[in-house]
Amino acid sequence: MSGATPAFDSHLHGPVLVIGAGLLGASIGLGLSHRGYTVYISDISPTTEAVAEDIGAGTSLRALTREWQGKDGQDAPAQLELAPQLVVVAAPPDVTADLVVRALADYPASFVIDIASVKSGILSAVRASGANVSRYLGTHPMAGREKSGPVAARGELFSARPWVLCDHETVRPELVKVAQQVATELGSTITHMDVGEHDRTVALISHVPQVMSSLLASRLQDTPLYALGLAGQGLRDTTRIAASDPGLWVQILSANAEPVVQTLYGVREDLERLISTLEAPTAAGARLDIAQLMSEGNSGVARIPGKHGGSPSAFAQLTVLVDDTPGTLARLLVEIGELGVNLEDLRLEHSPGAQVGMAELSVNPNEHEKLIEDLTSRGWKVVK
Amino acid sequence: MSGATPAFDSHLHGPVLVIGAGLLGASIGLGLSHRGYTVYISDISPTTEAVAEDIGAGTSLRALTREWQGKDGQDAPAQLELAPQLVVVAAPPDVTADLVVRALADYPASFVIDIASVKSGILSAVRASGANVSRYLGTHPMAGREKSGPVAARGELFSARPWVLCDHETVRPELVKVAQQVATELGSTITHMDVGEHDRTVALISHVPQVMSSLLASRLQDTPLYALGLAGQGLRDTTRIAASDPGLWVQILSANAEPVVQTLYGVREDLERLISTLEAPTAAGARLDIAQLMSEGNSGVARIPGKHGGSPSAFAQLTVLVDDTPGTLARLLVEIGELGVNLEDLRLEHSPGAQVGMAELSVNPNEHEKLIEDLTSRGWKVVK
Repeated sequence: MSGATPAFDSHLHGPVLVIGAGLLGASIGLGLSHRGYTVYISDISPTTEAVAEDIGAGTSLRALTREWQGKDGQDAPAQLELAPQLVVVAAPPDVTADLVVRALADYPASFVIDIASVKSGILSAVRASGANVSRYLGTHPMAGREKSGPVAARGELFSARPWVLCDHETVRPELVKVAQQVATELGSTITHMDVGEHDRTVALISHVPQVMSSLLASRLQDTPLYALGLAGQGLRDTTRIAASDPGLWVQILSANAEPVVQTLYGVREDLERLISTLEAPTAAGARLDIAQLMSEGNSGVARIPGKHGGSPSAFAQLTVLVDDTPGTLARLLVEIGELGVNLEDLRLEHSPGAQVGMAELSVNPNEHEKLIEDLTSRGWKVVK
Repeated sequence: MSGATPAFDSHLHGPVLVIGAGLLGASIGLGLSHRGYTVYISDISPTTEAVAEDIGAGTSLRALTREWQGKDGQDAPAQLELAPQLVVVAAPPDVTADLVVRALADYPASFVIDIASVKSGILSAVRASGANVSRYLGTHPMAGREKSGPVAARGELFSARPWVLCDHETVRPELVKVAQQVATELGSTITHMDVGEHDRTVALISHVPQVMSSLLASRLQDTPLYALGLAGQGLRDTTRIAASDPGLWVQILSANAEPVVQTLYGVREDLERLISTLEAPTAAGARLDIAQLMSEGNSGVARIPGKHGGSPSAFAQLTVLVDDTPGTLARLLVEIGELGVNLEDLRLEHSPGAQVGMAELSVNPNEHEKLIEDLTSRGWKVVK
């Protein structure tokens, strides 16, 4: 390569090299391959890389190298000269910064993005290495599933999910445009935030909720099972994400320790105050203290956007009993459709010990009362 | 009444007097009325009592008294002589004990139960009053909805929900049988626990989750709305119940302060340890500490019974993209039914900023992979 600054295209045309063929990397490879881009995929584990190729996530770099070396038969240059337009580092947070630095060096005409869920530390490390950060952009697709590995990959994993791009002072505008196209092609909605704001945000909306859920769930270890049998949706909802993978979360919480602990200081303060209040629940002002915590919780949760990012749920709820025979829930939904009512949200609730379920529906408040009447007259049991 | 001990019937035949015509009392009145029992309903507020009668929750005591006084025209005895078989005290926790004591005195041939969500304090207060606790049984139907008041009442509110009966040493066996029949008639599944075990159990499975949710949600008060727009199901699930009514929860947490604070001591300890770890995340042993908290959370949540009280979810999940047009979700369920697959659980997930939803389905693991194939070939987008 000469000393001249290469011209960079702001149009995503590929090829794309994905480094890291786990769930996210393989899903990106799958999604982009489906959309016609040339994708190369690489993983530190040969098996993982081969599986990713098998599922359609791209051409395995090892296979490509073998084929290329084999083709010549004679003295072939030592290194396959690959020139991807974009390198996507999709490795665990711990090793991402090193891989980004290496990719910036190995592919001097390429852009490099990563997708780790914590961003400040990576940008700092890449800067500190002396590498050319103008060709690097940190990003975070906020998608995932409880399974891991390439076999679990889905090209649609990012559909309708947010993808955050962490523009920084020296990033090339062409790179930002290319990254935007990747996210858009994969169906995501884009948000721009600097790395500090990103890390504080995910601390609040993802990492601290994980901590709270785990703190709560760990209290259940010695509870008799029949007592847990009385649990309702409240306990289930607040502990669901406590089933997350410890290995991954050790990395995330370590990497984002600072913003997480800042939020936890506030939690600790409120918890201490509540404990003091409950140690003397009949003391003057005790009730007001408790009410204040509850109200602050009310205010906080009311700020979370409702469905489709609109204002918090302005919908009315009703719960209908559905028995366990196949097709009952489908029939309920069909009848609701026949009544011309649009279903905004739906969940099926657990009913401990009984062979029925509760379908919790959200509808436009204007249609709420009439729907209850209509469903009841059609024989459905509206519970609440 | 003579000094002889009245004979008590163990068969529920009514009449039933419900004291307190809020959501729960009116729902009990409604449910029992629907099932043919004679129900009288009473509330400290004349309006509430009248509304409850209007919705079918029973005969208003005030109306009954006026009618009875009016009928005679002449000197009528000052007190309507009502002889309910069972009195159900369905008032806020704060006033329940007094109402139970009064009912035991006013209706010496009747059984009395209450339905407050905290039980030890009430039994103690009733005992301390010198009243005849053999005719009193504390109970707790674990049902409810976010609305309150008699207009929100539903006769099916208790269907498939647990109802706890808190037998104590001196309770008459006939009363326990009558209470069991009330719960069964209203569709509940019955669990017996003494008051101490009950209060510790609800502290763990209901009250502490409420506290944790409120503590977390209160952190969101100053978060920019566009940042909250990135929130996924994790934040929504862990903060959903933070929308609960402060007035009610002040009463509950005050009444159950002891078991709640005992559990919170454990939470505080774990939180302190995590904060210390995150203040020095690269120190030796830090990662192990975090992993340990996460694993304990894994263990705890795995103990919560799955659907229908069976062993925790042994089902496989898949998520299917559904667009927003009416009937799409119904069509998906119909097709799943056509494929002969039984849907164990379903929820529709919020998708911030996009006009699609994610239907998260739980199915038998044996049917999982084939269902994904079949749905995909029918044109559905299986996201994960």
